[in-house]
Amino acid sequence: MLDFTDKLRPSQPDGPTTLARERGQSSISTEELGRHLLSADGFLERQARILPIVQREPLLSKDKQQNLSRPERFKLGLARAKLLRRLVDKHQWSHEDYKMAEYLVSDVSPYFLHLEMFVTTVREQGSEAQRAHWMPLIDSWKIVGAYAQTELGHGSNVRGLELEARWDPATKEFILHSPTLTSSKWWNGSLGRIANHAIVVAQLLLPKRDAPFEYVSHGPNPFIVQVRDMDTHLPLDGVVVGDIGPKYGYITMDNAYMLFNNFRIPHSAMLSRYSSVDPETGIYTKPEQPATVYGSLTYVRAQIVHHARLVLARAVTVAVRYTAIRRQFKDRDGDGSGSELSVLDYPTVQIRILPLLATTFALHYTGLAMRNIYENAREDIEQGNFYSLAYMHSMSSGLKSLCTMLAADGIETCRRALGGHGFGGGSGLIELNNDYLSKPTVEGDNWMITQQLSSWLIKKMASAVEAPTSPSHDEIEVRFKEFVQVKGAGRNSPLSGYLVLENDEAIVKSFELRATTLAYDAYEQRILKKRSWNSLLIQLHKLSKAQSQSILVGKFFEAMSTDSTLSPSLKDILLDLYRLFALYTMENEAYEFLRCGALSQSILDLIPARIEDLMRKIRPHAVKLVDSWMIPNYLLDSALGRYDGRVYEDLYNRAHRLNPLNRMTFNPNYWEDEIIKGSGDGGSSILSKL
Amino acid sequence: MLDFTDKLRPSQPDGPTTLARERGQSSISTEELGRHLLSADGFLERQARILPIVQREPLLSKDKQQNLSRPERFKLGLARAKLLRRLVDKHQWSHEDYKMAEYLVSDVSPYFLHLEMFVTTVREQGSEAQRAHWMPLIDSWKIVGAYAQTELGHGSNVRGLELEARWDPATKEFILHSPTLTSSKWWNGSLGRIANHAIVVAQLLLPKRDAPFEYVSHGPNPFIVQVRDMDTHLPLDGVVVGDIGPKYGYITMDNAYMLFNNFRIPHSAMLSRYSSVDPETGIYTKPEQPATVYGSLTYVRAQIVHHARLVLARAVTVAVRYTAIRRQFKDRDGDGSGSELSVLDYPTVQIRILPLLATTFALHYTGLAMRNIYENAREDIEQGNFYSLAYMHSMSSGLKSLCTMLAADGIETCRRALGGHGFGGGSGLIELNNDYLSKPTVEGDNWMITQQLSSWLIKKMASAVEAPTSPSHDEIEVRFKEFVQVKGAGRNSPLSGYLVLENDEAIVKSFELRATTLAYDAYEQRILKKRSWNSLLIQLHKLSKAQSQSILVGKFFEAMSTDSTLSPSLKDILLDLYRLFALYTMENEAYEFLRCGALSQSILDLIPARIEDLMRKIRPHAVKLVDSWMIPNYLLDSALGRYDGRVYEDLYNRAHRLNPLNRMTFNPNYWEDEIIKGSGDGGSSILSKL
Repeated sequence: MLDFTDKLRPSQPDGPTTLARERGQSSISTEELGRHLLSADGFLERQARILPIVQREPLLSKDKQQNLSRPERFKLGLARAKLLRRLVDKHQWSHEDYKMAEYLVSDVSPYFLHLEMFVTTVREQGSEAQRAHWMPLIDSWKIVGAYAQTELGHGSNVRGLELEARWDPATKEFILHSPTLTSSKWWNGSLGRIANHAIVVAQLLLPKRDAPFEYVSHGPNPFIVQVRDMDTHLPLDGVVVGDIGPKYGYITMDNAYMLFNNFRIPHSAMLSRYSSVDPETGIYTKPEQPATVYGSLTYVRAQIVHHARLVLARAVTVAVRYTAIRRQFKDRDGDGSGSELSVLDYPTVQIRILPLLATTFALHYTGLAMRNIYENAREDIEQGNFYSLAYMHSMSSGLKSLCTMLAADGIETCRRALGGHGFGGGSGLIELNNDYLSKPTVEGDNWMITQQLSSWLIKKMASAVEAPTSPSHDEIEVRFKEFVQVKGAGRNSPLSGYLVLENDEAIVKSFELRATTLAYDAYEQRILKKRSWNSLLIQLHKLSKAQSQSILVGKFFEAMSTDSTLSPSLKDILLDLYRLFALYTMENEAYEFLRCGALSQSILDLIPARIEDLMRKIRPHAVKLVDSWMIPNYLLDSALGRYDGRVYEDLYNRAHRLNPLNRMTFNPNYWEDEIIKGSGDGGSSILSKL
Repeated sequence: MLDFTDKLRPSQPDGPTTLARERGQSSISTEELGRHLLSADGFLERQARILPIVQREPLLSKDKQQNLSRPERFKLGLARAKLLRRLVDKHQWSHEDYKMAEYLVSDVSPYFLHLEMFVTTVREQGSEAQRAHWMPLIDSWKIVGAYAQTELGHGSNVRGLELEARWDPATKEFILHSPTLTSSKWWNGSLGRIANHAIVVAQLLLPKRDAPFEYVSHGPNPFIVQVRDMDTHLPLDGVVVGDIGPKYGYITMDNAYMLFNNFRIPHSAMLSRYSSVDPETGIYTKPEQPATVYGSLTYVRAQIVHHARLVLARAVTVAVRYTAIRRQFKDRDGDGSGSELSVLDYPTVQIRILPLLATTFALHYTGLAMRNIYENAREDIEQGNFYSLAYMHSMSSGLKSLCTMLAADGIETCRRALGGHGFGGGSGLIELNNDYLSKPTVEGDNWMITQQLSSWLIKKMASAVEAPTSPSHDEIEVRFKEFVQVKGAGRNSPLSGYLVLENDEAIVKSFELRATTLAYDAYEQRILKKRSWNSLLIQLHKLSKAQSQSILVGKFFEAMSTDSTLSPSLKDILLDLYRLFALYTMENEAYEFLRCGALSQSILDLIPARIEDLMRKIRPHAVKLVDSWMIPNYLLDSALGRYDGRVYEDLYNRAHRLNPLNRMTFNPNYWEDEIIKGSGDGGSSILSKL
């Protein structure tokens, strides 16, 4: 279908010319920085190895997928997920290799829960006999499993789940039963259409020992349950299960509803490594260490924090490359000659994108630190020491909340900075945004879980007040005790504030003082003034945010201070990014810093100008900095963000050559029913889908 | 398909019970408040009249539309748009009636541009002869038109458009030609598949009088052009036109690309009410009053501002009703008895939703005021007085930016406050969000257009400094001159700040002082210190925001002060909403208020507690307040937000009975290609769509 547009080129300077100039003006070695960021765990090597394999599969082409309906997109998602699993066999991929392929394809797999929560729960909470029976079936994918915990009426409050598992001493079975509509399992991934088995979490109801017809609940317990027939794949009698329908994102995931009608499962269904019901006596053995459950939740949250940097880096890569290429208006104060300005040269574009570029690095160093702390905590836990688990759990809660908020809001900020083309399918940010917007809610709602960090900080402050001179176990204790001693001595916190514009470490101190002051305020309200917990929730949310911001800033600075591998010129640029991230955060929270005595007004007044200085210094390196995140075009799937800068050619190609709507000719006459010209079909085929 | 779930009910207290209790605890008359808000222009009467008509049309059912693909959804959109137009004929609807139907159906019509920019441009810019020829064709929909201005490479900068309209004196025709790929028209609604005509904006190129083979551009001019064949509906020779593909929202709109290859159009194609080319001499007559163009842009922006309140009210209605019904956790400090708390009783939920509820009212009174100012400005303009147009245009720029940002961010804040179910299709916020996210960008990018208000304020401040005692024409001049005089007398602005916690008018004064101070700062930088315009952009953006916030607060207070129809108890509640909106805004901008001397630290420190007090006072009225926006269930299309509170029944119905994915049984075995069980189709049908 050749036409006169085939030979047209964009106006000059075009994208490739502009990006070449951008890359030429920065001394950064993207290879050095890329290795610094991503060589751990062989990430870069793995990406380079897996990418060509997935890219050559026609089924994994992303060109037209935005045009599919939910059912079509789900079929495609399933076909792709099967293909990926077969590639594992063919290429003998490790689990990490498989995860890389999934990351590059960027579809949420309908098998996701089988590979994550299902296998993990059986492995960690199944008895030896249960594992011996189930693990070979799971590992071979002979059965496909899901994890069914949340219900229509209960998510955050797990103890409030309504589904019942009632022990029948006569038959030695459990009876799963949904007493209400709200007790329906809901949101459970991989279960809506795909899984034939599930971990089902239900209230364990046992007869009272002295009144065997009265039942008492022993709280939620996990059971492994077959829910679909292995031949027909239809739900078993007494089970109603299906997909909950269209959602914001996760289009290829079959999130489920599921209800049971007096559905009997054998005694062996209850996962019994930590808790069990004696089949003879009906006596319940409690789990010894409920804390182990927090271990996997903490792990998931640490993963989410670590993942956030690459998600945000995708959006920032698109934003930086496109706004460098996009030109609009000549300089208002100029003489009218020369070309229009790159929109990235406008401070109002920089202030939206460059602090987010700095945020990708802040997220990176905290993500790394979280992983290290987690590894250490696992060792402690295996030695029966739960102190570091509590520390880790509380930190991961605050950081999960802050980091997913930064990434989710950051994607949308980048999208809006793209102007009109940010609203188009060529941005590459639509599916990213739709999928990622689940993250502020899953694995602990971002507003709710901040209580966990704040509650822990209040406890820490209470012990610091109680014994300000006792030995400290961690940096928080050191800081809190110091604060209490200064306060006790009647000295004020440094009212003039830290000299954050001259000293990088003073930035960390300032963030810490603010968080500590807020922790003391919360301690005062809750412990001394006995205020109700719920009346303090907003304050506690602010405390968690302040502490988490202080970690992001602290870990960034620590990484810069301890690293000895980076070239000095690269470290200078990273330090500017550190300062930009910190000062930008300070400006947004200026009043709180002032109120806590962590910054003086005279310094706060200078911060906006300093931020603009830093942006001017970082601007020439912006393209090379995003290049260093090494995000392949295939993953970006973005006309605006592609490495070679052929933005307009790609947008035009998607519109003119790939859009299926342009294969249809419509009848525009309102007095005629016909929709497709010449079809004579007056909308009845579309009506049949309503 | 009866099964055991048909008889299940949600756990108690259920939605209807909860909403009945909520409505019982508030004295508000929703009828009184509804009439106060929406009786102007017969809005409520019209809604009540049109709603049953659209609701009974099967084609207008929204039940399953989220499951359709883009091409299917576009067909449905076209079928619906035709139906609506036929309903106009059948029921003799006025244009306002038609707009109401479109609002309720909530699809963006593929005929939208025909009805708006196409007809408006011909009417306002066509000569008498042109109007006589075209208007009957347009009014009867014999032709369908669009408006093609923005291009692939240029949106905001209209003067930078690349499409050429070159005058050929020999044939007395214009030659439309796209010299580059970036000169392709882009984003032009209704043109991708539907329109057969378009207003095409192109650089008017005329031969130089003294060198007839050299051409010079006279800037962008509008031409009316036929682009598709009236029989075949295929593009005419020399025209390439199509739909640009999937987007964030606007799924039923065929936004276009369009290019021309030396395409000849007659002399009569150039709209010539204000400017023209003499066909004999080739001499160009300039438009006398380029300001008239600003008139329609200002009108569109005023409409967007006015519309924002109903958009945000939709999201807030869903959020308030659902969070009142949703219960999670018992009181941590309670004795464990009683039911779980409504999540709307948690301050961390209130702080996200109730200030937005207050914002709907703030947007309302400013929207009304804008309409009134616009009506007055029109009269002035017709009398040749452009002063009020300049005033109106600058205000509408700042307000469009602020109000669409408040509404767009507010929808997403509401959605996240819904927890998990906010991510589901039953929220009713997915299409709303997807469509509304166009608004921060269209009709002037939200960051770019704030320059217009700030530029005007700097000019006003410069005249105030020049002649501080001259008579004033508007409230801004009064305020600026007062400021200059106080400053000149060496007096400080009231450093202790206004007593905003005791006096409602002091709130307005405080917002005004902050905006005025920022205006003076900007004047100082630009005029006295001669700073470059682009280096001031961030500061100018802040100034525009401050001024626009001051308008929102001022118009809200003015409406409360001048109204004599509201019952005292209702006015008390509205005043609390006023205070909440204002204080919440102040807290978010605390440092700037402090720095401008508009609030003292001692008052700022009290604001968070006062906000919580106000939220406690407003909380019992929240459901009745959203009820008063009178948004019908049909428009909400939300399981979570429905008036009767049957949240869980509706969510279950959508999942179990309406979801087409549950009609398909899948094959989960990864080693088998087959996707639909028993079909034997190994993904080839889905592959054909890639």
